[in-house]
Amino acid sequence: MSMNKKIKVGIIGATGYAGQELAKLLYTHPDAEVIWYGSRSYVDTPYSKVYGNMVSMADEPCKDDDIAALAKEADVIFTATPQGYLAGVLTEDILKDCRVIDLSADYRLKNVSVYEQWYKIEHKSPEFLPEAVYGLCEVNRDKVKDARLVANPGCFTTCSILSLYPLVKEHVILPETIIVDAKSGTSGAGRGAKVDNLFCEVNESIKAYAVSTHRHTPEIEEQLGYAYHAGEPGVNEVPGGSPICINFTPHLVPMNRGILATCYASLVPGTTAEQIADIYRKYYGEEPFIRFLGEGATPQTRWVEGSNLMDIGFVVDKRTNRVIVMGVIDNMVKGAAGQAIQNMNLMFGLPETEGLLFPPVFP
Amino acid sequence: MSMNKKIKVGIIGATGYAGQELAKLLYTHPDAEVIWYGSRSYVDTPYSKVYGNMVSMADEPCKDDDIAALAKEADVIFTATPQGYLAGVLTEDILKDCRVIDLSADYRLKNVSVYEQWYKIEHKSPEFLPEAVYGLCEVNRDKVKDARLVANPGCFTTCSILSLYPLVKEHVILPETIIVDAKSGTSGAGRGAKVDNLFCEVNESIKAYAVSTHRHTPEIEEQLGYAYHAGEPGVNEVPGGSPICINFTPHLVPMNRGILATCYASLVPGTTAEQIADIYRKYYGEEPFIRFLGEGATPQTRWVEGSNLMDIGFVVDKRTNRVIVMGVIDNMVKGAAGQAIQNMNLMFGLPETEGLLFPPVFP
Amino acid sequence: MSMNKKIKVGIIGATGYAGQELAKLLYTHPDAEVIWYGSRSYVDTPYSKVYGNMVSMADEPCKDDDIAALAKEADVIFTATPQGYLAGVLTEDILKDCRVIDLSADYRLKNVSVYEQWYKIEHKSPEFLPEAVYGLCEVNRDKVKDARLVANPGCFTTCSILSLYPLVKEHVILPETIIVDAKSGTSGAGRGAKVDNLFCEVNESIKAYAVSTHRHTPEIEEQLGYAYHAGEPGVNEVPGGSPICINFTPHLVPMNRGILATCYASLVPGTTAEQIADIYRKYYGEEPFIRFLGEGATPQTRWVEGSNLMDIGFVVDKRTNRVIVMGVIDNMVKGAAGQAIQNMNLMFGLPETEGLLFPPVFP
Amino acid sequence: MSMNKKIKVGIIGATGYAGQELAKLLYTHPDAEVIWYGSRSYVDTPYSKVYGNMVSMADEPCKDDDIAALAKEADVIFTATPQGYLAGVLTEDILKDCRVIDLSADYRLKNVSVYEQWYKIEHKSPEFLPEAVYGLCEVNRDKVKDARLVANPGCFTTCSILSLYPLVKEHVILPETIIVDAKSGTSGAGRGAKVDNLFCEVNESIKAYAVSTHRHTPEIEEQLGYAYHAGEPGVNEVPGGSPICINFTPHLVPMNRGILATCYASLVPGTTAEQIADIYRKYYGEEPFIRFLGEGATPQTRWVEGSNLMDIGFVVDKRTNRVIVMGVIDNMVKGAAGQAIQNMNLMFGLPETEGLLFPPVFP
Repeated sequence: MSMNKKIKVGIIGATGYAGQELAKLLYTHPDAEVIWYGSRSYVDTPYSKVYGNMVSMADEPCKDDDIAALAKEADVIFTATPQGYLAGVLTEDILKDCRVIDLSADYRLKNVSVYEQWYKIEHKSPEFLPEAVYGLCEVNRDKVKDARLVANPGCFTTCSILSLYPLVKEHVILPETIIVDAKSGTSGAGRGAKVDNLFCEVNESIKAYAVSTHRHTPEIEEQLGYAYHAGEPGVNEVPGGSPICINFTPHLVPMNRGILATCYASLVPGTTAEQIADIYRKYYGEEPFIRFLGEGATPQTRWVEGSNLMDIGFVVDKRTNRVIVMGVIDNMVKGAAGQAIQNMNLMFGLPETEGLLFPPVFP
Repeated sequence: MSMNKKIKVGIIGATGYAGQELAKLLYTHPDAEVIWYGSRSYVDTPYSKVYGNMVSMADEPCKDDDIAALAKEADVIFTATPQGYLAGVLTEDILKDCRVIDLSADYRLKNVSVYEQWYKIEHKSPEFLPEAVYGLCEVNRDKVKDARLVANPGCFTTCSILSLYPLVKEHVILPETIIVDAKSGTSGAGRGAKVDNLFCEVNESIKAYAVSTHRHTPEIEEQLGYAYHAGEPGVNEVPGGSPICINFTPHLVPMNRGILATCYASLVPGTTAEQIADIYRKYYGEEPFIRFLGEGATPQTRWVEGSNLMDIGFVVDKRTNRVIVMGVIDNMVKGAAGQAIQNMNLMFGLPETEGLLFPPVFP
Repeated sequence: MSMNKKIKVGIIGATGYAGQELAKLLYTHPDAEVIWYGSRSYVDTPYSKVYGNMVSMADEPCKDDDIAALAKEADVIFTATPQGYLAGVLTEDILKDCRVIDLSADYRLKNVSVYEQWYKIEHKSPEFLPEAVYGLCEVNRDKVKDARLVANPGCFTTCSILSLYPLVKEHVILPETIIVDAKSGTSGAGRGAKVDNLFCEVNESIKAYAVSTHRHTPEIEEQLGYAYHAGEPGVNEVPGGSPICINFTPHLVPMNRGILATCYASLVPGTTAEQIADIYRKYYGEEPFIRFLGEGATPQTRWVEGSNLMDIGFVVDKRTNRVIVMGVIDNMVKGAAGQAIQNMNLMFGLPETEGLLFPPVFP
Repeated sequence: MSMNKKIKVGIIGATGYAGQELAKLLYTHPDAEVIWYGSRSYVDTPYSKVYGNMVSMADEPCKDDDIAALAKEADVIFTATPQGYLAGVLTEDILKDCRVIDLSADYRLKNVSVYEQWYKIEHKSPEFLPEAVYGLCEVNRDKVKDARLVANPGCFTTCSILSLYPLVKEHVILPETIIVDAKSGTSGAGRGAKVDNLFCEVNESIKAYAVSTHRHTPEIEEQLGYAYHAGEPGVNEVPGGSPICINFTPHLVPMNRGILATCYASLVPGTTAEQIADIYRKYYGEEPFIRFLGEGATPQTRWVEGSNLMDIGFVVDKRTNRVIVMGVIDNMVKGAAGQAIQNMNLMFGLPETEGLLFPPVFP
């Protein structure tokens, strides 16, 4: 693709935190340009008035959320919108006009009833579910390339699934023993003006929330189910037919960015730390965005902050025969906008890493 | 006890964070006064030069760590010292002269070999282990009253044990399934000048550490073992004979104070949320420092910060038949200095809550 | 005053941060009890549902803002309300029934037109301005004792005025050269749900705001004017007649509590550091809540956090012949609720320090 | 310059925060590559063991500080070292072999006695002072291009000078009234293991330090002196002959990055806000890294964090006839490593912005 013909990108929901991260990352992407900053709340306000970091880089006014009009102008649309938005407006015409990468959960779960049960809203366009590709690049790389509609994974799910995927797929842990205790920076809570997210309420405190009811739970379960049952006839075809059932507990941490997933599972008897390390190297040794740090390593969110990288480490506790896997990502990048661009790169035949090879920012 | 005859308190290790918290809390205690600020590193330096908050309240110079001399002057000595210090200097003469409340781990574990295995140091005075009382007031209140030597529980252990104690004792959870995922503010790391604890290293990051090897693990296991086996002949007498074996994972959180223990365990089949709530109310309904917030509550460290309180909540996940118990304390107060004073109150026949009934500081 | 007859306190605006601090501090005050938690936004909600730290300490439901009814029940009312509220509802009847301590700005400025110019609202009851006492205890202690209506000073103003008052009063600095560069923790911004005060917006950033237009400016100017002109016939009687005109610049700092005022002024030629230190010792040497740290000291907010204390230090720069005075307070305590209780103590004949002698919380 | 022949860069002091920022920024620079990570403290330790963000990007071992050997291999050397290091080792041979960009203060002050007075160390190689170019690109762009030795400006100085430079040069403010009240994130304090920089000591607090004695003071004064006296015969030639004398007060803020300089000065009578805005537009309108935000704007460090940008705003207070100028930078980037690379670009004939055009990271 030549520099003269950049991918035209529209962002709907451009003034949320994930939308802003998209705008920022796309600003330095060599083969893409944002042509539409969509924001229902800030129509006609210069984008850089909403996000002062983009002064002189994105001073054009925000536009309304007219996805049909946008589809005619753009090559790809990112929707960083509340649950239900895209499902309510998506049409075959839009998908004929341009690609869509959805950062909401509307097309992540294959089973409509699971979606409606966890999200408490009706799904308005289940007809697109079959073709939607779950955009976890390291797992579904090939499918993403040809997709018209990509469901960009959730932040917690990206971190949790990639942490456990190789062990589940290789059947070295018992799926029914999986517990994911996850910790997230506060940008994951969005930019809505709520008392609970005020500085003084979040600072100097930690809490769990949505215990046993968080919506990323079925997403993790479905994807790990596919991994576990791969090769068994028919299992992958059963939408939501996963027997895997886990505990997932998110926590809010007084920091801006970052997710740490501390994952516990019982080992299949006889499994050694060496075997586990070998499995991670086999699956992730060549991955450009995953750094396997080895046995005994305890990843820290500061070492991936601002980047599209994931760090993974693990410990085997022989006393309890459990493995503790720790994975960290930047929730805004690998957990949202960065991964979305990684998907875009795949969909447009660009190098998967294009525009994403910047090191983490520290301190 | 009359106001005219205050308890004379000596603090050894007064310039660590726990020592400072003791100094601060004792300043407002109506029946105690600090007569000795012991600090090997700051001998002859005015205490308030080391901790500016105590200017005009504790301006006297720090003294060396002469515990024998101190024992002759003081009614009670608090040792907020590194592991091994007290075990290396404690004598029968000292215990004849005054009471000792040890904030280190030297007398917490009844089994010397478990101590030496986890702490990697030799125990120099195991002869005092039998008489040492584990000062978890809510559990060992009566024994504390007559003790000469109290082993003040660790911060993580206080929070973890009190979170799980009623459920273990009532046999409604399966002990071998217990996983404690704990998160601590950075004051728990102490005041030592280490790169890892610099502001820029801790801020904006979260990490697990000492995974499967943290020294508070055997302490939790031993105490929960006593709870589980209470009533069974002989079990309590076997030092360290607990069959309970858990996973404990501490995390460092970018905040000054506070511990959250997120505890997972499989329920004995048939156990209901109502039963669990009843058990907590039965055990803690009258406790002055424990607030059971009920089913579905997710305690937050901010609501106990600066106080001697513990908040507990829980969720039952019917899908996995696990209970998730969440307990929060201020690691410096209920997890260290506050509990130590609670023990002192018990040992000297004062109301257990004296000097400790201040509300949490927020924001 | 006996314990059997506690001062009955009503708080209007009890669910703001300052209101909460009042509730917390009064909980441990030996001679007062809160009988009315007023909160228009949370009528009938248990107070401890709004502030989880107060669970088991203040579980009664919030009441509406009926100040007339409250005045009949209470001995004293604290109004921690938006500007204009009290001026809109205050009556002679209320003041006959009970004392009022106003934490808003309604009665701080003697000159109505200055108030209306800076606050952009009409003053509805200027008739009470003459009797209102400006409740800066260290300056107006005697007047407070007999007041029916006390205007509790603002947080920035308390810190700024007390930092400069002795030097202005002694005429050793040139008033027209005063510049106050102030820094405040985020609790000063209140608990309103605004995007600008979200954790991710405040964290990892610093900014100035309301530059040259902040409403605490005329309050500082008026009070320093009284100090400067004391003794000159008539000047004190001229409402708002102060010739002092300063620059005041507040900044928002990513921390919960604390104010630091860095004050610059040119010295009257010949003034020495020794003279300045002597002046501070003369004015504040006996003050229970002011700690003068001496020449060269740089006060830090952490050393006063959670307390009613103020720390002051200064440096003389001989190259520029300026003095730089630094004062720190906890904006919630000495800057709001603590000072209000100090006023209450004075008004009810209690020891001025009652219920306020707790050390700062660190870390 | 072709991609085949990258600039070979050596960093001495690579494991300090500024050194790490250099390593990170150079990793994505298209025309430079780091060939030497110098660190006396970590010789033979892989660089990525010291800074986990650089895993897989800089895994080579650190080398000792042999600047003579390095000079033979490198095209340019960055010294991010303590004061006095470079002055102690620099030789004519080194400067013949390669260019040197010094991030320490050794060659910033033209007058040796001023250096020795403020830094309290002897200057070992004053013979190189005349040729050293003060690398404030926006001011000395042309001189930098031909320099062998560039003195990279300090973080506070960059922010302070650029904030005031146009107003001083245009003689619209009175230099003797300049007061700079600066606030810095904690990375400015370096990575040394000191108690004062521990998380719990810095977090939740603000303080001034080095009041009237900070070493960046004479640097600001010298550069503003050049600006003020430009055109007057001889003044620029007098090393350190600046008559400008200011107050500079740095503060430590609980955040990782960012500097805000709040600058006060009296206006030359008759100067209007419009004139000031025009001056800023004239000087900075075409600057790629300076964004003048206009009258009334209050820049915030969050909007420049992680970038090489500077934001400037100002307010005129007609009551006091002072202007308050606020400038913000990222102390690690524009205040250190980014500006150093900007200098490198100039010295090697590259576009000045190369490798530096990334937007600020938020949140």
